[in-house]
Amino acid sequence: MDNSISMAVIKRLPKYHRYLKELLDRDVKRISSKELSEIIGFTASQIRQDLNNFGGFGQQGYGYNVEDLYKEIGKILGLTKTYKTVIIGAGNLGQALANYTSFGSYGFELVGIFDKNPKIVGLEINGIEVTDVDLMKKFLENNDVDIAYICTNKTGAQFVADILVQAKVKAIWNFAPVDLKVSEDIRVENVHLIDDLLTLSYFLKEQGE
Amino acid sequence: MDNSISMAVIKRLPKYHRYLKELLDRDVKRISSKELSEIIGFTASQIRQDLNNFGGFGQQGYGYNVEDLYKEIGKILGLTKTYKTVIIGAGNLGQALANYTSFGSYGFELVGIFDKNPKIVGLEINGIEVTDVDLMKKFLENNDVDIAYICTNKTGAQFVADILVQAKVKAIWNFAPVDLKVSEDIRVENVHLIDDLLTLSYFLKEQGE
Repeated sequence: MDNSISMAVIKRLPKYHRYLKELLDRDVKRISSKELSEIIGFTASQIRQDLNNFGGFGQQGYGYNVEDLYKEIGKILGLTKTYKTVIIGAGNLGQALANYTSFGSYGFELVGIFDKNPKIVGLEINGIEVTDVDLMKKFLENNDVDIAYICTNKTGAQFVADILVQAKVKAIWNFAPVDLKVSEDIRVENVHLIDDLLTLSYFLKEQGE
Repeated sequence: MDNSISMAVIKRLPKYHRYLKELLDRDVKRISSKELSEIIGFTASQIRQDLNNFGGFGQQGYGYNVEDLYKEIGKILGLTKTYKTVIIGAGNLGQALANYTSFGSYGFELVGIFDKNPKIVGLEINGIEVTDVDLMKKFLENNDVDIAYICTNKTGAQFVADILVQAKVKAIWNFAPVDLKVSEDIRVENVHLIDDLLTLSYFLKEQGE
């Protein structure tokens, strides 16, 4: 595996994966970089360049075999195994994520939900009982959790992140609007919903000019 | 305004805006592209190139004036006016978004929430009563709504989008896992939460190799 693959390429792979899944569902067997370009919105040369990073799966004059490409990208994205996940913060957002059954179909298995609010602790969400956050560290140490979704408010997020680091959770998906300070061996993806809105306001402004 | 600004640049602007806000909050007056690079994670040359698209606000040997740059990027992003927004689908996700007060501070004003579930219609969320979706079209026509957040399930999303197009809403922020078919004069941003998870699984796989 070439380790010099840029973050930009990696960030595009999930999109390839999603579109190839749709093609597969529509029983499309093969596709050219030009056709793929039209549905996915990257240029054909960008697509060829991206996929070359991983050895290139296309054949001149044939294009890409959709199923092979889908499977290969799935492998590259690490989707050949399952990942244990937990949610911390079972407010509206945490509950929404707990009910996203599609995550499970990709292999992201939800094994625990934690909250500190006594009114929420004990509730069952999507078949999982919400546990007191005070018991989280012990749970994490016993359950080899891969990814934690932080759905707390801004104030609670760093406290939670510190426990996750101590318990050697491997990755954090952070929905709290704060930059977490964590050790370098834990991977963090921050969700900034406001960024999408600012992209929309940019375009609304451009239209109005 | 140069209309050839690439989507990639536009997508980076909200991140500049967020980091500049943090610098402002910490009372930082000026910053070099190198220092900005260290906190924001783009290269200094990328930063200079990005900001040159908009006329360039830096001065040789001084760097950027944080407040000026923050205000300029805010202007570019269309944050000098307010936008009327509605939420369709008041399940957990819709309720979570309704309670994100930070959107309001950017000028995205929530003016309506709609759902079809009789158990949810009539509830008050963040001071706004959930209205029956059957009344939505009339509401939209009377209220000049800029952006609609679709938080329905996959099945309901296209039905809702058709009404939004008819009522001349200008932009859609789509959380439903489906590609909407809409006319070209309506701007759509799709949220694909799974993409973040696939980025994380990529890195977990790389670590494990």
